[in-house]
Parts: sequence; structure tokens; C-alpha cells
Amino acid sequence: MNASEFRRRGKEMVDYVANYLEGIEGRQVFPDVDPGYLRPLIPTTAPQEPETFEDIIEDVEKIIMPGVTHWHSPYFFAYFPTASSYPAMLADMLCGAIGCIGFSWAASPACTELETVMMDWLGKMLQLPEAFLAGEAGEGGGVIQGTASEATLVALLAARTKVTRCLQAASPELTQAAIMEKLVAYTSDQVVATLGTTSCCSFDNLLEVGPICHEEGVWLHVDAAYAGSAFICPEFRHLLNGVEFADSFNFNPHKWLLVNFDCSAMWVKKRTDLTGAFRLDPVYLRHSHQDSGLITDYRHWQLPLGRRFRSLKMWFVFRMYGVKGLQAYIRKHVQLAHAFEALVRQDPRFEICAEVTLGLVCFRLKGSNKLNEALLESINSAKKIHLVPCSLRDRFVLRFAICSRTVELAHVQRAWEHIQEMAAMVLAAQGEDKAEIKN
Amino acid sequence: MNASEFRRRGKEMVDYVANYLEGIEGRQVFPDVDPGYLRPLIPTTAPQEPETFEDIIEDVEKIIMPGVTHWHSPYFFAYFPTASSYPAMLADMLCGAIGCIGFSWAASPACTELETVMMDWLGKMLQLPEAFLAGEAGEGGGVIQGTASEATLVALLAARTKVTRCLQAASPELTQAAIMEKLVAYTSDQVVATLGTTSCCSFDNLLEVGPICHEEGVWLHVDAAYAGSAFICPEFRHLLNGVEFADSFNFNPHKWLLVNFDCSAMWVKKRTDLTGAFRLDPVYLRHSHQDSGLITDYRHWQLPLGRRFRSLKMWFVFRMYGVKGLQAYIRKHVQLAHAFEALVRQDPRFEICAEVTLGLVCFRLKGSNKLNEALLESINSAKKIHLVPCSLRDRFVLRFAICSRTVELAHVQRAWEHIQEMAAMVLAAQGEDKAEIKN
Repeated sequence: MNASEFRRRGKEMVDYVANYLEGIEGRQVFPDVDPGYLRPLIPTTAPQEPETFEDIIEDVEKIIMPGVTHWHSPYFFAYFPTASSYPAMLADMLCGAIGCIGFSWAASPACTELETVMMDWLGKMLQLPEAFLAGEAGEGGGVIQGTASEATLVALLAARTKVTRCLQAASPELTQAAIMEKLVAYTSDQVVATLGTTSCCSFDNLLEVGPICHEEGVWLHVDAAYAGSAFICPEFRHLLNGVEFADSFNFNPHKWLLVNFDCSAMWVKKRTDLTGAFRLDPVYLRHSHQDSGLITDYRHWQLPLGRRFRSLKMWFVFRMYGVKGLQAYIRKHVQLAHAFEALVRQDPRFEICAEVTLGLVCFRLKGSNKLNEALLESINSAKKIHLVPCSLRDRFVLRFAICSRTVELAHVQRAWEHIQEMAAMVLAAQGEDKAEIKN
Repeated sequence: MNASEFRRRGKEMVDYVANYLEGIEGRQVFPDVDPGYLRPLIPTTAPQEPETFEDIIEDVEKIIMPGVTHWHSPYFFAYFPTASSYPAMLADMLCGAIGCIGFSWAASPACTELETVMMDWLGKMLQLPEAFLAGEAGEGGGVIQGTASEATLVALLAARTKVTRCLQAASPELTQAAIMEKLVAYTSDQVVATLGTTSCCSFDNLLEVGPICHEEGVWLHVDAAYAGSAFICPEFRHLLNGVEFADSFNFNPHKWLLVNFDCSAMWVKKRTDLTGAFRLDPVYLRHSHQDSGLITDYRHWQLPLGRRFRSLKMWFVFRMYGVKGLQAYIRKHVQLAHAFEALVRQDPRFEICAEVTLGLVCFRLKGSNKLNEALLESINSAKKIHLVPCSLRDRFVLRFAICSRTVELAHVQRAWEHIQEMAAMVLAAQGEDKAEIKN
């Protein structure tokens, strides 16, 4: 395919994408396929000769779309949101075209420098303590990781390296293995200090945990993968209080801040804690500026060597929405969650199972776990909306997460009416079962 | 930005991308900027109010492009290639629009199933042993990792878990820490068994290493990050001989197989070795098919939880190029490397420093490391082409890697003429230095 065909096909794809997202409400949110559906639909080997773009795009509708769970449908309320916005998609097109691998400053200076500045922008939006910002001469700074899992692992490895070196300096007779055996990582049952857990969006109290970690010299990593985006609104910022005690902090703009996956924002107070743990300097990656102290080589901040120009999508999104636009987006989702909560509270058959702080509502039918499992099963079998459950203190609970960029109050109301209908059915079925048992 | 503005801006971006790639030869391959160039060019904080797309795209040319190292310029011969093709870019647009996070089969069945089948297609293209393929009832299978670093780490952790469990089963009194302390990972000076090292594209002899690992019960991971793509050509397949002894194998289609970053292909013979090490099953990720044995939940195969629909770009590229088209692409690059090698050999001032097997030529001026450092410095300062060095047995060597999808013989010849000119200059300067010393 040459540039001229790309001009044509690219524009067709832009229309396909726009059509898909404009029409997504008309697609069934969860697919009908059974495991193994796809393999019989396509050849067992790659074709020897080239095929045409028409063949492929036709197969997208025939083979791919029937097996897609539509995460951006306004009837998708499962898991947590995953970000999708047009500015981010435009930036990703540019990112693909530039196609640099930004492992060092020299490998593409713009890729490294825009990332550092965007992470400062975002840190300021969150009112992160100054120590986490790179600025022009700071000791801290931000980096875009692929996922929160990577950010957490990077923090863990950096912490381990730091404490191991510290102990070895104090007691040179200790072997690394002897030290390793004694290291302890403290976690809650949701892993590391978490602001906004996946199950029910609960918050660890950093103002209690933080000072203890600080006194004891324990590395404190704070993960706010989902909730972090909300901290750009002053009214939610208090949930981040105590972050000043943390050594590292991360959250995922690719969840709730309209920056498409992959974009997990991570900050550290001391960048040398990361570069000390991950430094890698083969000759073929050296460049003339690397020891100047002026530059950042992000390969020392992460597990992979390669990395895309991901800060472009932050730049496009922050500028095309503006901070106010992003705040309005967060607030709308929180309002929709509270609207759903109010609907649930009006129905005495149901109960709310956790405080609704942001965009997640945990709820259930008053009654057994079995009853609620039957309710979820009936909802997800009907496939008009899609939900997933969680377990809260051994109770089976349904999660209603505000996810789609295009979800409106009408969708939430329709979803609730549907849940009520399904509930009536499972309660009736339960009544019949009980009647049968009595008979 | 609504769908209608995206239709307009998306098409403008398609043209911008096509213009960029068509005109890339006219851009200086390596930028002129100094460290810290970007920060003064943009505001210190994100804007409160939205800006327009025009503002941003104007800034791309003013702020971003001056700081880009153009990896897809036909005058870029540094590092290794990073893949860029129009079919992959089209697929990535679709991937962004679908925007699913494929951590489980249910999270988007098409995302999981296409990946499994594409990894089988690719495995067959490489003539991997049957044991690595998923097929309909295989014990092995493939997964797309983000990078080779992640693939290697995943293999290492899976190997560690496997041997630890094995030893604990045999000697239940051993603690995990006691076992850990005794574990040994054998590597060469290029890490793990490697086919096509970064420095000089050398090959470990799997037919020697493999049987020993097999006899001793040592997990053998084989990394062919760059070279792996060449194995789709029958004439290079012999370089992969011995892979039948490996437990896991990976290479990066995002380097040399026209599938844009990120796409690192990894296969294992026993998928349970991965899922045993990484299994993660909170209630909110459970789905009705997960214990059926019919499905794959790829979150158990990797470090992150989240993952994009990356197999789409494999599917688009394999179909739009066809196997023959991909083979022709590899062969052309290898021929260009040999053409460059022949040019170097014709000039008695130069020497070839490693066997040219695929697309990389390691060469230097006969003489001191200092002389060659001066040559590289003069080449990279002139910025007509871009190269990086390597160190081979303490000798400073220049690497000439065939990288760009659009590089032709004429570019290689022009690059060589330029290198000769630079060499003449540094040799003349050296001569003057010597003359001065004599005087």
C-alpha cells in the first residue's frame, strides 16, 4: 500500500470509526459468540498473495464485530471505564506515523521532553506536591507507563533496590539473598495503598499510613488507577491528601481522563530511585548528552526498552478539552452515578453496598448471594446492558460503573428499568421455587 | 470534538501522516535541538479553556517536528528497524476505536481469539515446531507482549515459579527463600539465548545449548527480537534450528515485520507454565466460560492486566502484504546490507567487523577506536544520515542497519559516499595531528 492508497483507505477508516462510534448504541453491548467462534471463520494460514483492503474491512464486520464487547457503548457499565476520545485517537494516528522508539533522549528528543512537560502539566492539574514535578531542576518527575501493574512493579523493584543498597552499605557482610529473605512488603487485601479500589472504589487513609511509612523508612507507593482522574476537580482533591508522604504515585489517564490506552501516569519524588534500579547503558544506546544531567533517558524509568510517543495524546486531550472540559466530564459521570444510586435507594427490594464517592455504584437485591447471582446472570444473558460483580465481605454484589464517554441520564434510567424488570423475574422465580419446596 | 468534527480532522490527519511519510526524505534525519528545547516553547500549565485543532496541528510542526529523530527516514541506519506500514496504521485506528481491554475472553472474545489464531499463523510462517502452536487442542500457544523485555521477564518468572514448585514438591521442608537463593540463570554477555544480537547480529548455537538445557531440566528461553522476522524466508530458517529444545521463544514483528510497535510475539510449549505463574482471578474478572478449558484469558500470560486489540495489525499486515510480500521485504533489506558490505570491502581503508547475515553491517576504519569515534562524531554531527556504534571485543565499531521501509539502493550508495567523505576528513585531520606531533 502506497501513500496515495493510504490517503484513500485512511479516510475510509476515519469514516468507519466515526460510524462505529456514532452507531454503537445500536449494537448489542455483549456478543453472542461461543468460545472458539473465530477460528473456523478464517483460514488456517496466512495468505501467500496480498489481499485487498475491501476484503479485510468486509471481514471486520463479518468476523470481528460479532465477537466484540463494546466497551464504549452507553450500555456498558462493567469493570471501570477505559478512555476513548477523538483527540486521543487523532494523536495516536500521529504517534503511529512518527513511529519513534523513545528509549533515550537522543532517540527522539521531542518524545522525551513532551512527556516530561505533560507529566508536569498533569501533576499540577492534580495539585501534586512540588517534589513530584520535574520542573527545570527538580529531583522528581513523571513517566508514562503502559499500565498500573507496570507502575506498581517498577515502584516495588525500585524500593527493593533502594533498601537492599542501604542495608548493604550499613552491613557489608550481608549477602543480597540474605537481605531479600528478610524484606517485607505490606499490602491491604487490595494491594499497595490504593485510592479507589476496583471492587467498590474504597480509599486507604494516607494520612494514617503515610506518617508511619515516613518514620519507618518504608517506601510508600500509592495507586489511584481509576480514582486519580477525579483529583483534577477541587471538590475531590481531598481524597489525595497524604500523597505528600508517598515515594511514588500513579493513576491511569487511560481509564477516566479521555486519553486512550496505554497511558498510566507515574510520579516519583526521587528519579534516582528509578534510574538506580533500572540503569542500562550499552554502547549502542549512548549519546553525547546523556551524562550532562540535563536530559532524561526514560528507558531507566521502566521495564521495557521500547516506548511509543504516548505524551502526544495527553497533549491533544488536555488542549482540546481544557482543564474545565475534563472537570466537567468527571463531574457528569459522578452525577450519573449518584442518579443511579438515588434510583436504587427508591426501590426497597435493593440496597446500596458501599459509599458512592465517584462513578461506581455497588448494589444488590436484599437477599442471598444466590439470588444476586441469578440477577446478574439474567442481566448479562439478556445483553441489553453489561455489568460485572464483586465480592464485598463475602457478599455477592453488582457493580454499576459509569463508563462510556457518551452515556447520558436516559441510558442510566433505561438500564435501571431493565434491572428492575430482571429483578422482578428472578424474585418471581424464587417465589415459585419456595412455593414448590413448601408444597 | 464530536463525530462530525472527527470525520473532518481525521481526514486532515490522514493527509498529514501521508505527507509526513512521503516527504520524510526531505527532513533532516536527526534534530538540531539541545536538551531542554521544548519546555520554553509551551505553557507551564494545561489550558483552562479548550483550544482548537488548528492550534495544535500548527504546534506539531513548530514544536514537535524540530525535535523528532526521524526513524522512518531512508537515511536512518541506527539501532534496528522499527516497523511502520500503512496497513498496520489503519489497523491501529480501528484498534483505538474499538478500544477494548482484552484481559479476559469475555472482555472481548474477538480480541483474544484473533490473537491466538494470528500467533498460529505467524508460528506457521516461521515453521515453529507444532508444540508451540495453540491449534484447537494444543498445550502451547502464542501471546503478543508489548516488548521483548517483557517477554523475557515473563519467561524468567515462569521458569522460576516452575522450578520452585518442582523443588518444593520434592523437598517440602525447603522455604521459598532458600530455593530462590540457589537458583541460577545462565546467560551469555548478550542475555538469554539470542538469535541476532543487537551489537552485531550474532547467533547463539541452539543445537549445542538446547540439548544440554533439555537434559538438565533448565528452562530455555530464546530471544530473536530483531532476526526472528527473517525466519519467514526458507533460506534463513536454518538460523532458528534448535528452537525445538526451547520452552519459550519470542521475536518482535514490530521491528522488521511491518507491524507497528507494540507487537512482541511470544510462544510457549506449555501454556500452563505461564498461567501457573501469573494467574489472577478476582470476582469482577470472572466469567461463565473461564473454567471450560476452551478459552484463553490472556491476563494470565503477561505482567499487565490491560491489553489493546493488537492482533488487528498483524491480521491487516499479513493479509495486505501476503507471506510473499513480507518475504520480499526481508530479502530486499538483506540485499541492501550486502550491497553496503560490498561497498565497504572495496575501500581498503575500512574493514568489516562481523559476518553480515541479515540487515546489519558492522564496520570501521582500520585504525584506533579514537579514529572511529571521530568518524562517527563527524557523521552524526553532519546529520545527513544517522548511525550508532557498538563495542565488539573492545573495538569501537560503527553499525549500519537497514531500517526504513522505503530505503533503496540509491540511499545506501549516497550514505556510503557521505561516510567516505567524512572518513577522508577525519583521516586528513589525523594526518595533520601526526604531522604536528612530528614537528
